[in-house]
Amino acid sequence: MSVGESLARLREGKPLIHQITNYVVMNETANATLALGALPVMAHAAEEVEEMVGFAGALVLNIGTLSPHWVEAMITAGRAANERGVPVVLDPVGVGATRYRTETAKRILDTVRVSALRGNAGEVATLVGVKAQMRGVESIGAGADPAELAREAARSLGLVASVTGPVDHVSDGERTAAIANGDPMMATITGTGCMSSAMTGCFLAVADSAFDGAVEALVAFGVAGEDAARGAKGPGSFHVNLYDALAALDPATLDGRARVS
Amino acid sequence: MSVGESLARLREGKPLIHQITNYVVMNETANATLALGALPVMAHAAEEVEEMVGFAGALVLNIGTLSPHWVEAMITAGRAANERGVPVVLDPVGVGATRYRTETAKRILDTVRVSALRGNAGEVATLVGVKAQMRGVESIGAGADPAELAREAARSLGLVASVTGPVDHVSDGERTAAIANGDPMMATITGTGCMSSAMTGCFLAVADSAFDGAVEALVAFGVAGEDAARGAKGPGSFHVNLYDALAALDPATLDGRARVS
Amino acid sequence: MSVGESLARLREGKPLIHQITNYVVMNETANATLALGALPVMAHAAEEVEEMVGFAGALVLNIGTLSPHWVEAMITAGRAANERGVPVVLDPVGVGATRYRTETAKRILDTVRVSALRGNAGEVATLVGVKAQMRGVESIGAGADPAELAREAARSLGLVASVTGPVDHVSDGERTAAIANGDPMMATITGTGCMSSAMTGCFLAVADSAFDGAVEALVAFGVAGEDAARGAKGPGSFHVNLYDALAALDPATLDGRARVS
Repeated sequence: MSVGESLARLREGKPLIHQITNYVVMNETANATLALGALPVMAHAAEEVEEMVGFAGALVLNIGTLSPHWVEAMITAGRAANERGVPVVLDPVGVGATRYRTETAKRILDTVRVSALRGNAGEVATLVGVKAQMRGVESIGAGADPAELAREAARSLGLVASVTGPVDHVSDGERTAAIANGDPMMATITGTGCMSSAMTGCFLAVADSAFDGAVEALVAFGVAGEDAARGAKGPGSFHVNLYDALAALDPATLDGRARVS
Repeated sequence: MSVGESLARLREGKPLIHQITNYVVMNETANATLALGALPVMAHAAEEVEEMVGFAGALVLNIGTLSPHWVEAMITAGRAANERGVPVVLDPVGVGATRYRTETAKRILDTVRVSALRGNAGEVATLVGVKAQMRGVESIGAGADPAELAREAARSLGLVASVTGPVDHVSDGERTAAIANGDPMMATITGTGCMSSAMTGCFLAVADSAFDGAVEALVAFGVAGEDAARGAKGPGSFHVNLYDALAALDPATLDGRARVS
Repeated sequence: MSVGESLARLREGKPLIHQITNYVVMNETANATLALGALPVMAHAAEEVEEMVGFAGALVLNIGTLSPHWVEAMITAGRAANERGVPVVLDPVGVGATRYRTETAKRILDTVRVSALRGNAGEVATLVGVKAQMRGVESIGAGADPAELAREAARSLGLVASVTGPVDHVSDGERTAAIANGDPMMATITGTGCMSSAMTGCFLAVADSAFDGAVEALVAFGVAGEDAARGAKGPGSFHVNLYDALAALDPATLDGRARVS
């Protein structure tokens, strides 16, 4: 199945994407999910996450503003997702910046079967034990080649790993794809990384495999970023355009715009 | 009093609208409240909600991202509002999706005297015991006619019930109004339901009755939605236009644009 | 050093600005920080704030939606910032509206050495014991002249005090500056006060002194507000323009636009 076919299927089926994410981007990832064509639901109470995830097409865990209650809810939801065959995406925001983030991400990876990991080079490098430099939640230099990093993360953690940056790399340990879609303006607003994880959840709910879904998500989001950059006067108007562009993505032309190698 | 007169009174008096709402839409409902002409305040700590609600013209409770501490604060604030004659609006986001949401909404309705309930058809149906289908926080089919649902909710729960959808229905158990204002684009962004509950709080602070206020809020918000849809290229630009349109609502012409039957 | 020179230094060094702030504006202050040219990080868990603040160029504490765990984290982070020489900005949102807010702000001021306080007239008046009137988090009248208020707060609290309003006043107790930059549209959206505190954190990370940084922040933010107001059709488009304008601020022309006396 192609990215265009997956998008068409997503818009027809409107899968529910359960997101336990950070306070900074909750509105942004919900709106991006809606604009793409799926249904977001944000629910984090231990009292309801197991029940909610039972209706979901995917679960997205994002540790951007973590605290103990939220971490417990993520693990509870993740285990319930595993029992029900719901794919889980992990966004290890800021891993490497503090011990708490690193330990939490590792604990989630140890206790939940994660289908796809989506992070920047510094975050993914930290999780595979490669020396990396983080400034807060931004990666400012990872020792390794990002394609190699994606492959290494996929192999050692047993999942599909997406390392996003100027060019994105996705690997399942065997195959590795490079996605050149996107625009530098995507780095000028907060939350585009988190949105790309939400998009990964959306595509995992419909794609043939986690690898295909992870690649398709980054193609679709990157194409939307390219469209949003046209006519943007700065980060504010780019941000607005991005939702318009996600909603305007055309399944019929999307495959032709993919820059995957 | 008409919707135009209420809006003029609101902008003159600038009532404080105390909102205990969900993380996803807090910025959105605060900005919609400000754009309409009232003053929002978000405060959820048990340590301060009783004091804060004492200054308020209305209290809006929204269970979109609920957890135990927040539920307790909602009940504490709701009881204090009742003691002081401050009208209370309840938005039962996602009721029917999980037991925790359903039980929480019922508990609030049992312990707090709610003036107006604002929900989608699935949420209101669940609260009156009619079989409904929810996908996360979206209603994807309620068994009953929405006008009938509003009337039944108003009667059985003893409040004004607003059931929003392509056409909105408001009932106090005796009278039932249908409001045809609005635009399909309102469903393309997250938080328009929550915003309509916030608008209901704003109008309840100034209107002659809870029924009048609930109707006026949906007229005003619907008219703003119509204005915002003009020239919108997608959900992002619609979202931006919506605040511009709320601020530009003209009390002098608003009555003539109401489509109420 | 001038505001233009500070902005150039900020964009070159990209200091990390650690913000423990309220749910309503978290996305807004993060995006404003990024648009100006610094790196925001939002982290509030007691488990990580001491470690995170160690990498920061400034710490911004904002009590807009406070609760006990968050207050403890603010104090822990503030003390760690003090030990490491990281400047601390306090935004006492809503002080004077409830006892909990007033007591919390005073407790932070008692236990953390705050470099700069940024509030509206009502909030700052409350902290120096001058009678003020608050409606929720809005100041609707303070007994004192704002220049005098800034000076009095600076002297009695031993910090740089910024009192923002139609004209902003900044004082270190000796010098007092009046900043006439800005636009009335800044009051039409929620979070511009919080953003100006975040901007203060950004400039404190690079300026020659806390006084200089506080003045420069309000000049830069005010100039961006002036630019954003041009062509804005209402609060929604003004909000979008504001991020575009912050990113477009030109260090080479900024000094010439400062209206400081």
